[in-house]
Amino acid sequence: MPKVAIVGYGQTKFSKDDSKIESVLLRATKNLFDSTSNLDQKDIDAVLVSTNNNSKYLAPILSEMTGIQPKIAHSIESLCNSGTNSIVSAYSYITSGLAELVLISGAERFDSPGQILEWDNLRGEFKHPIFWASIFSKAYKRKFAITDEDLALVPVKNHKQSINNPNALSQKLVSIEDVLNSKKITDDLRILDCSRPCTGGASILLASENICKKFTDIPIWVTGIGQKTTSASFTKNITFDIMESTRQASLTAFQMSKHNPGNIDVMEVHDAFSVCEPMALDSIGFTKPGKGMDMVKEAYFTENSKINPRGGIIGSGHPLGATGIAQTIEITQQLQSKAGKRQVDSANIGLIHNMSAAATSSTVLVLEK
Amino acid sequence: MPKVAIVGYGQTKFSKDDSKIESVLLRATKNLFDSTSNLDQKDIDAVLVSTNNNSKYLAPILSEMTGIQPKIAHSIESLCNSGTNSIVSAYSYITSGLAELVLISGAERFDSPGQILEWDNLRGEFKHPIFWASIFSKAYKRKFAITDEDLALVPVKNHKQSINNPNALSQKLVSIEDVLNSKKITDDLRILDCSRPCTGGASILLASENICKKFTDIPIWVTGIGQKTTSASFTKNITFDIMESTRQASLTAFQMSKHNPGNIDVMEVHDAFSVCEPMALDSIGFTKPGKGMDMVKEAYFTENSKINPRGGIIGSGHPLGATGIAQTIEITQQLQSKAGKRQVDSANIGLIHNMSAAATSSTVLVLEK
Repeated sequence: MPKVAIVGYGQTKFSKDDSKIESVLLRATKNLFDSTSNLDQKDIDAVLVSTNNNSKYLAPILSEMTGIQPKIAHSIESLCNSGTNSIVSAYSYITSGLAELVLISGAERFDSPGQILEWDNLRGEFKHPIFWASIFSKAYKRKFAITDEDLALVPVKNHKQSINNPNALSQKLVSIEDVLNSKKITDDLRILDCSRPCTGGASILLASENICKKFTDIPIWVTGIGQKTTSASFTKNITFDIMESTRQASLTAFQMSKHNPGNIDVMEVHDAFSVCEPMALDSIGFTKPGKGMDMVKEAYFTENSKINPRGGIIGSGHPLGATGIAQTIEITQQLQSKAGKRQVDSANIGLIHNMSAAATSSTVLVLEK
Repeated sequence: MPKVAIVGYGQTKFSKDDSKIESVLLRATKNLFDSTSNLDQKDIDAVLVSTNNNSKYLAPILSEMTGIQPKIAHSIESLCNSGTNSIVSAYSYITSGLAELVLISGAERFDSPGQILEWDNLRGEFKHPIFWASIFSKAYKRKFAITDEDLALVPVKNHKQSINNPNALSQKLVSIEDVLNSKKITDDLRILDCSRPCTGGASILLASENICKKFTDIPIWVTGIGQKTTSASFTKNITFDIMESTRQASLTAFQMSKHNPGNIDVMEVHDAFSVCEPMALDSIGFTKPGKGMDMVKEAYFTENSKINPRGGIIGSGHPLGATGIAQTIEITQQLQSKAGKRQVDSANIGLIHNMSAAATSSTVLVLEK
């Protein structure tokens, strides 16, 4: 089976603008075409759109707008990890031989219908993500003696890192005090602990090893893939202080890539809320349970931006269908030593963690130079 | 790479009922579990949902309702050919080695938002499918000297065939006169020329050859796959009397399967409107351009139900996300000699043709015993 590489990418700025979803897809894809060598529409075998938007037939629409006549064209949705689901699907189309070159475009508007899960409402559960994030925060703080001050370091770090990311929604520093004094949403959650919905797009190009050198001198290989869905509703989780789907997806991704957490030089983890970053670090296996905050602190105080260098989701903003793709672009740029002011030293192996709905499902990817 | 087989299936009756989408998915999947030997939830690596419904996260929701904890779980949408897009995606997950057993469930409600393409409206095009179907009918009739009476035979045949399909929406015969006297929608289209939206679900199980014998004695192999998207808007088509995406997808599917139209014993073709059936037969290559009606007539007058044995879309009803899967189930049952009263003689090789939006995209599958 051919190996699969990331060979191109393009993004829009993440913002609160009111563009139509088709325009966001188009802008991200135009940026990809503008920055990728030798890319001819005729070479693209598949176009996948990652979104929670209710518009239909977006993959053929994007194809028509960009002059592509692909074999395969469809949308993929799985809430906040639609983006990495699309990347795994593209990987499978290429390794199966059905495609050699796959364009994925993820986009969302600030008013995405994916922010609230109606099914939870039907079952009488609280439907807004703030409720599960609040329960996670309470459980994690209680079990591991973590304080609100500890958790506040996550947005402080990620807003700081996003200042070096021109596509990020946030372009200003926040302090521990800013976080602690920001509007209280629940007992355990303040507004600055939360990522923000926004409008944004991210497009990425995956190629078979047979053709990848046509498009880039530095292909970045997808060497590890892990995915797991444990449930659709967070009250079916047995524990609220570890992300079980993330734990299982990580084991699979490390096994496939023949790496372990100690080999990872740079990572984007799914910090939808402050508590998610240390929990993800624990669940992936970077740290023992409850020790994720120590890793966050060490990175922050040594000015090492290897955890969420683009500012993560809290700093960059969270256009759901684009998020997993933007995370993957960041790690690709890091491994290519093209991350500018955000560049992490000696970045050879990277990891992406993207999850949905209280970590009821997770994707973990390992990328290598 | 492992070969891929269809090893199980289940369906709901297609009806006008008001069930929630989750219930339709669940019923079709329960029928699959009830009729498949040795199927254990733990063996299922991926759950794909095919739908145009606006509800999110349906693949994890269906997984939770049925006790599955898959690795891969997401929805796939591409209007009317979402179902076969999902089957091709499942095929690629299996051949890539990321999955060995994939459950797909397609479902739609009668009030599907996929029936009208808002994008057409934005661009000032007529947005209802009746408009492209009317243009196709006028073009096909004019170019090939086909009459309204000729085309009326399609619904006559397909309603007749659906009487032997207990899951079909239509359970009554219509005559040529009934079709010609039915309400005129446009100059070239009467109400009985049209398929009808409805509520329905269809689930199918695909397996790697390594494990397929666990679930069935008669695995049906997916040996040919062709897909093509030419545009998203029918006014970008160059011709209105042939389905160009279908023609190209068919060539690919025949090349992959090493068969030609003459080898196909039974077929489901996408008869969304009367004219689509002869046009599809022409475009797939069963007949020379304009001769599709001759093949329909011959089948009808010799009482051979090899074209759309389940009643096609006109007879069965058209729950968009379920349609491509229901077509594939029909051909599977035919090749397994399990189609009951609908059974076609000597059915060893079958074909599915599923398309979207004025045939701007098409999928063609070849199945073999």
